[in-house]
Amino acid sequence: MKVKDKHYRTIWQSNQNKNVVKIIDQRLLPFEFKIISLKTYQDAIEAIYDMAVRGAPLIGGTAAWGMYLACLEAKQNKDCKKFILQASKELMLSRPTAVNLRWAIERINKAIRTTDNINEIIKIAEVEAKKICDEDVENCERIGKHGLELIRKIANKKSDGVVNILTHCNAGWLATIDRGTATAPIYAARDAGLDIHIWVDETRPRNQGAGLTSWEFIHENIPHTLIVDNAGGHLMQHGLIDLCIVGSDRTTRTGDVGNKIGTYLKALAAHDNNVPFYVALPDSTIDWEIRNGIKEIPIEERDTKEVSHINGLVGNKVESIKITPNGTTCKNFAFDVTPAKYVSGLITPRGITRANENDINKLYPEH
Amino acid sequence: MKVKDKHYRTIWQSNQNKNVVKIIDQRLLPFEFKIISLKTYQDAIEAIYDMAVRGAPLIGGTAAWGMYLACLEAKQNKDCKKFILQASKELMLSRPTAVNLRWAIERINKAIRTTDNINEIIKIAEVEAKKICDEDVENCERIGKHGLELIRKIANKKSDGVVNILTHCNAGWLATIDRGTATAPIYAARDAGLDIHIWVDETRPRNQGAGLTSWEFIHENIPHTLIVDNAGGHLMQHGLIDLCIVGSDRTTRTGDVGNKIGTYLKALAAHDNNVPFYVALPDSTIDWEIRNGIKEIPIEERDTKEVSHINGLVGNKVESIKITPNGTTCKNFAFDVTPAKYVSGLITPRGITRANENDINKLYPEH
Repeated sequence: MKVKDKHYRTIWQSNQNKNVVKIIDQRLLPFEFKIISLKTYQDAIEAIYDMAVRGAPLIGGTAAWGMYLACLEAKQNKDCKKFILQASKELMLSRPTAVNLRWAIERINKAIRTTDNINEIIKIAEVEAKKICDEDVENCERIGKHGLELIRKIANKKSDGVVNILTHCNAGWLATIDRGTATAPIYAARDAGLDIHIWVDETRPRNQGAGLTSWEFIHENIPHTLIVDNAGGHLMQHGLIDLCIVGSDRTTRTGDVGNKIGTYLKALAAHDNNVPFYVALPDSTIDWEIRNGIKEIPIEERDTKEVSHINGLVGNKVESIKITPNGTTCKNFAFDVTPAKYVSGLITPRGITRANENDINKLYPEH
Repeated sequence: MKVKDKHYRTIWQSNQNKNVVKIIDQRLLPFEFKIISLKTYQDAIEAIYDMAVRGAPLIGGTAAWGMYLACLEAKQNKDCKKFILQASKELMLSRPTAVNLRWAIERINKAIRTTDNINEIIKIAEVEAKKICDEDVENCERIGKHGLELIRKIANKKSDGVVNILTHCNAGWLATIDRGTATAPIYAARDAGLDIHIWVDETRPRNQGAGLTSWEFIHENIPHTLIVDNAGGHLMQHGLIDLCIVGSDRTTRTGDVGNKIGTYLKALAAHDNNVPFYVALPDSTIDWEIRNGIKEIPIEERDTKEVSHINGLVGNKVESIKITPNGTTCKNFAFDVTPAKYVSGLITPRGITRANENDINKLYPEH
């Protein structure tokens, strides 16, 4: 996507030094656009853990490049395979909810299994990490194409032509390598000349809607309005939302969707008001090993400072303010699970499917 | 309730000067506890409009004292009845959603209708304003008594004894004259020695949960945990909430509940997870003239700066920070409507009733 009219992916191998991976430090957005370097797999772990990068597909991409960095470092070690295995384990623990993390690490590990030559291992990991990222871009483009048809159908039915779409959190370009998952249909609709307007949920506590999705939409000229997370139900009751599209951090093979905390509440409101509620996701987000999202998707609990403190601008300076009185304790659950029955459909790279095991299986017969 | 162990109401006539009304400036909480004076009815309008006072019952109480101040000012005017009428009209427009505002103004106007003598008018208005406030305290105590039985029943069924209650916004002491509506059963349960724990919704955009309810609970030693508005659904899915109690700004005679934006989403989640969802309210919050909440309860739209900016502490200083990127526009709806079908019951001063016209009528046959 574009930042001040220049195209960027969210992660890339440095042109100057192939041993360095570049990312956008998303902790500073929307106030500062800063590119930082990952030079070791520990850098990748920190970037994931501390949310310099976030979003299931980008976590996968960063883990893949983290594995490549681990392979580079392994060259300095006697037992390089042991070193890589240890790095895999540490990377795996950097965040618990997004299944793409495991998927990307396992994919690199499988690819490098064919050889014991460390130079070959490095080359294979590099190629595979690139491939994981390129495939993610392609997946998002396909999601966009399928989602566009959904938006087009709604546009055709609307007398004023404007399709109002609600999205929660940032399942945008910044959550993927490019284009986004939930935003891919939005960008595709814009490119196709459809008249759209996006309601952007603020997404407390980390404000990914206010800070990231809004920022993307400004740079891409997408008409949008920011609302607090509390407002979506009211808008739906009054016919102001035609469609919800969100992303997913982990989807069960039965169609339960683990996504940013608060997604479930919007799905309930959509269901109550007959507003279609779609989830856009690449295949790598589906956890084929589980069937019961509420019981089996691990929900990350994060630092309560994310609830008690907020970053923002005072004048031109970014400050962290405390919004709670002394003596109040907080809890900070990062995700929730939307049961499949509240999901109108999944927008996947292979097409749109209903959120149930049977229909998902038809689209992915190999699993 | 208590602030640093001293008892306060939220509004009172000054002891030193009976022509002055005192309030707590709630805009500064939880960071500063400051008492300010209302000397004219315009001061009362400003306090309501700018939310130095808020919460339906306290808006009613402030409007009543505002009418008293208008009567005092009318004494300086040739046509004092005309002056009071004009003041009534202006007060009525200070905020649109809470029906208590209209109710309190009409009640004072009715009481002073009996005489043309301005000194008598002033005396009657003073007595009536006091009565409105005293009655509100009594109402809240009764709500507490009825709500306590509800909590006791749940406590008896729980093996660990702790009753987890979710509340949204601040329908506490600070929203009323004393004790609160939604918090009255909580304070009563604490007084009765029941083991309770409250989940406090942050309540964006004005953070009344984080800033006011938490602050009250700290001063009253109520065990509580602050969560973002997005989290309640997840907690209910995992059995961590036994009961929801919220307040109301306007309730239809059919039981639809207009309350702080986001209430509806919590009611949906409660319904989906079989968690009882109760609304605590004084009679003055019922609008006997309407039946369809979504269509007929006017929803206030407030300054979008409440969404784009947040107040908090940097060190010891209260600062306002901007949390959105330049170029993003916001919308700020202050309330939403929860349809009666999602309300398990209304906790009124006369007892608990189901939220439907028939049952409400039985409790209030005079309407």
